Amino acid sequence: MTAATPAPRRRGRPSRTETAASPATREVILAAAREEFSERGYEKTSVRGIAKTAGVDPALVHHYFGTKEQVFEAAVAVAFAPALEAPSTVEEGPLEGVGERLTRFIFGVWENPATRTPLLAIVRSAVNNESAAAVFRRLIATQLLRRIARQLEVPDPELRAELAAAQLVGVAMLRYVIKVEPLASADPEQVIARIAPVVQSHLTSP
Amino acid sequence: MTAATPAPRRRGRPSRTETAASPATREVILAAAREEFSERGYEKTSVRGIAKTAGVDPALVHHYFGTKEQVFEAAVAVAFAPALEAPSTVEEGPLEGVGERLTRFIFGVWENPATRTPLLAIVRSAVNNESAAAVFRRLIATQLLRRIARQLEVPDPELRAELAAAQLVGVAMLRYVIKVEPLASADPEQVIARIAPVVQSHLTSP
Repeated sequence: MTAATPAPRRRGRPSRTETAASPATREVILAAAREEFSERGYEKTSVRGIAKTAGVDPALVHHYFGTKEQVFEAAVAVAFAPALEAPSTVEEGPLEGVGERLTRFIFGVWENPATRTPLLAIVRSAVNNESAAAVFRRLIATQLLRRIARQLEVPDPELRAELAAAQLVGVAMLRYVIKVEPLASADPEQVIARIAPVVQSHLTSP
Repeated sequence: MTAATPAPRRRGRPSRTETAASPATREVILAAAREEFSERGYEKTSVRGIAKTAGVDPALVHHYFGTKEQVFEAAVAVAFAPALEAPSTVEEGPLEGVGERLTRFIFGVWENPATRTPLLAIVRSAVNNESAAAVFRRLIATQLLRRIARQLEVPDPELRAELAAAQLVGVAMLRYVIKVEPLASADPEQVIARIAPVVQSHLTSP
């Protein structure tokens, strides 16, 4: 295939040249996929709709990513990238401080609108669709929790990592998704002071 | 309006007699609403669809419950009823054991498929629709958490109750909704042994 500049976004069937493949085209499709999944959620998003937003032929979307679930996984991996840095916070210092480092990191991701918005879209899709849940499961289980668990020195490290994640996921659900008060408006430092010891205990207590 | 026996479920516009109001009719509508919301979620459910399933005129649904959001709240209140007994578990014994009593109670509700299914439908709707989230918020905030908070002897009791709920909500999300392993298949007693002290600490530690 010949190289092509990314096609401008517009309606209607793209022209022959626009459908030519290139690394740039792949990025355009990925950006369109993130936009479509964020706005419509997994179920209402189609490969055809992603192709139209990207201004390319649907065949190109399949060429680069495969099925709709595979496009979603690629889009989620990008949106989820900031959170996937969490395991490195475990390595950054002594295990005694892992609870606070991990809690502060996750709060940072959620408090930043730029990283919160795509996370909300992922959570909404995962809660409502089994294919999206499977993607989310692989991502947090294998790329996030397993990596944290490998660094723990307790029995059942993977279960411990998941229980710690459960406290953080639950706070995110009530604070950012359901928005229950007073938690939704509470000072992050006040919440972190309460949550960090719990995360620490799950990850390191005997 | 005159009394009427509950209309049999069937397609098409119901007859005049079927649309007559009665306490029985109200229950038929409520059962139909629970079925519709559970199967389709909040956004895809319509008052017209609920009326059709109940075999009554849509005007009767509005007569008994008002708007779609109000029908949802009535249906949710029924599905959520088992969980709303949680605050009484706090009263059942000394505050020292509240963490385990509350954790065991919530696990009991989630482990029982009969109570888990409607809860899953509520969570899915609340995560994806602001009106449904508002209903869920009112329900858990006012009817569940406020009642628990009133019995606590700590500063910021409402925030404490919400942080405890966050641990339980997060475990439910990862175990029953996203189904992350090993948590999804873990022995409930093993999980309760880890979660109860956290809930206890959130509710009673200085």
